[in-house]
Amino acid sequence: MQLLTKSIKGIKAPDQKIYDAALARLADQAKPPGSLGMLEETSSRLAAIAGTLDVRLDRKVVVTCAGDHGVCEEGVSLYPQEVTPQMVTNFVDGGAAINVLARHAGAEVKVADIGVAADFDPSLPIFHKKVRKGTANFTKGPAMSREEAAASVEAGISIVHELNAERPVHLLGTGDMGIGNTTPSAAVISLFSGLPPAEVTGRGTGLDDGGLRRKIAVIEKGLAVNRPDVSDPLDVLAKVGGLEIGALAGLVIGAAEAGVPVVCDGFIATAGALIACELAPAARKFLFASHNSREKGHRYMHRHLGLRPLLDLEFRLGEGTGAAVAMTLLQAATRVLAEIRTFSEAGVSTAD
Amino acid sequence: MQLLTKSIKGIKAPDQKIYDAALARLADQAKPPGSLGMLEETSSRLAAIAGTLDVRLDRKVVVTCAGDHGVCEEGVSLYPQEVTPQMVTNFVDGGAAINVLARHAGAEVKVADIGVAADFDPSLPIFHKKVRKGTANFTKGPAMSREEAAASVEAGISIVHELNAERPVHLLGTGDMGIGNTTPSAAVISLFSGLPPAEVTGRGTGLDDGGLRRKIAVIEKGLAVNRPDVSDPLDVLAKVGGLEIGALAGLVIGAAEAGVPVVCDGFIATAGALIACELAPAARKFLFASHNSREKGHRYMHRHLGLRPLLDLEFRLGEGTGAAVAMTLLQAATRVLAEIRTFSEAGVSTAD
Repeated sequence: MQLLTKSIKGIKAPDQKIYDAALARLADQAKPPGSLGMLEETSSRLAAIAGTLDVRLDRKVVVTCAGDHGVCEEGVSLYPQEVTPQMVTNFVDGGAAINVLARHAGAEVKVADIGVAADFDPSLPIFHKKVRKGTANFTKGPAMSREEAAASVEAGISIVHELNAERPVHLLGTGDMGIGNTTPSAAVISLFSGLPPAEVTGRGTGLDDGGLRRKIAVIEKGLAVNRPDVSDPLDVLAKVGGLEIGALAGLVIGAAEAGVPVVCDGFIATAGALIACELAPAARKFLFASHNSREKGHRYMHRHLGLRPLLDLEFRLGEGTGAAVAMTLLQAATRVLAEIRTFSEAGVSTAD
Repeated sequence: MQLLTKSIKGIKAPDQKIYDAALARLADQAKPPGSLGMLEETSSRLAAIAGTLDVRLDRKVVVTCAGDHGVCEEGVSLYPQEVTPQMVTNFVDGGAAINVLARHAGAEVKVADIGVAADFDPSLPIFHKKVRKGTANFTKGPAMSREEAAASVEAGISIVHELNAERPVHLLGTGDMGIGNTTPSAAVISLFSGLPPAEVTGRGTGLDDGGLRRKIAVIEKGLAVNRPDVSDPLDVLAKVGGLEIGALAGLVIGAAEAGVPVVCDGFIATAGALIACELAPAARKFLFASHNSREKGHRYMHRHLGLRPLLDLEFRLGEGTGAAVAMTLLQAATRVLAEIRTFSEAGVSTAD
């Protein structure tokens, strides 16, 4: 837990003076005040994090964290668990949706095995951070131990450290892969929001009505059997979370510690962000919500975090796909702030 | 009117077989069916227009059409009319919001003077297509003659022809500049939707409550004085429209004729698209809605067109800014279709 404690303590707040200077410049640009909407607030937040009005997001990285889920035994997903390692291979080969959308955004894709229930060749170019081979079935007891939960968060933190040591990262995206992982994510938001599982549980990759009812019952049972302590985020993660969800929390904490903005993806990545902000409330200022997914509970996560997502394209894929697309908007925001001329620079008359 | 008639007749429908083939490929890609939401439908429509699953959007151009409005005499805008030519100069100099966001999207910006109430040096690198110097005040009679309305539409068509003759355009964006032009745009959607002006009129660049009430009264008076024939789109354009709105309609018709997809921007550009689709219903299949602006009546325009906008970033600027940002999403959509591997290509197991 030393790494986690140290990382949380190391988070420094973004620069409020730069934030104010960004808002002042935007208000003075030759356009009606606030007329570029959400890009303006986004650009000011990015400036405050970077400590400059001329923000460069040159190195962008999406980290896709993979893990398996014992709760799949309960029939909560349409896809077999073997898809998790197959998709890891697909990510490495460059043929998956996240590879395509990251290329579009000019971002690298890095894959991390946090808890896939299969062995990978050590030469496979991924972050080998396996904490254990899949979680246990949380309808029968905790998904993992508290130590394993902490180790999964620290795996995420260490990935940020390693990436940054290689070459400074300017924007980090979080993404997930793990058959069954909308189930623990729904459990997590149910706990933090206080809403019943039926209110926050969606169809994942495409369950029918019967499948959805079963999934809700599985989550209800998991919460009843484990009784997670909602004031203790590591207890929540250990009892009904997931290994990749822990790492996704660690990525947010590690990025905040490193002063790197982090754009989180869909339902699972945002479950990780929730755990991160419960562990380290100061991390929230580094967090950007990429999109509102079709997964029903996602909006409650954003509400809990107080973040408004930039996109609503009806994605429900994960992998970091929404984060990758949103990276292009964050990049646009930085250019808006730095490059649009002010009224006086452009020689344009102001409003009456 | 010969150019307009010929252009409308020249529109050919996109290729339905390619559309179906695109949907089939998307369904076979290694991801849950439909999980990339709006990008999937968007990519299929782009494929049908291009006639191939491997769509290239190499040359992207935003055309920003400028015009002035006699109705500004009635105090419907916070900004003085001299801002229209000043912003044209700012566009040419590259310092405006549209220049910045088009650079971000890898698009060129072309500016067209359709009806600015000022003279430009003929050497200024813009499309010199002035039909007249600003419209007349539509509270006192028609904004322009029927011949001028047709000429403004034909100006837009000829711009597409000239751009395409230079080098083929793969994606066209439409944008506007014209102090006071939310007023005629609200009049246009009020007529086509049958909704009263109070329902579709917004604050433009930032009117207060009193200003908004005055603006609504001005539109009501314009409609009462002119009684436009809603079944005759050129009559609507002539009586309560604008010169740049006519050209924005022409851009859509010209693009459809040339088989080029066109992404329309905000409230004014979409008013032009409405006129275009009333004149040439076949043009609608080439049209993509970029964003939902903060201008209140914009959603009614999209409803009337049966289009769902890709973005909702609370923009209310115009110039083509929303179209430019949406171009990056259209580009992402083409890559999704062409580059994501199928289950069999990627060696991934399918759903049960």
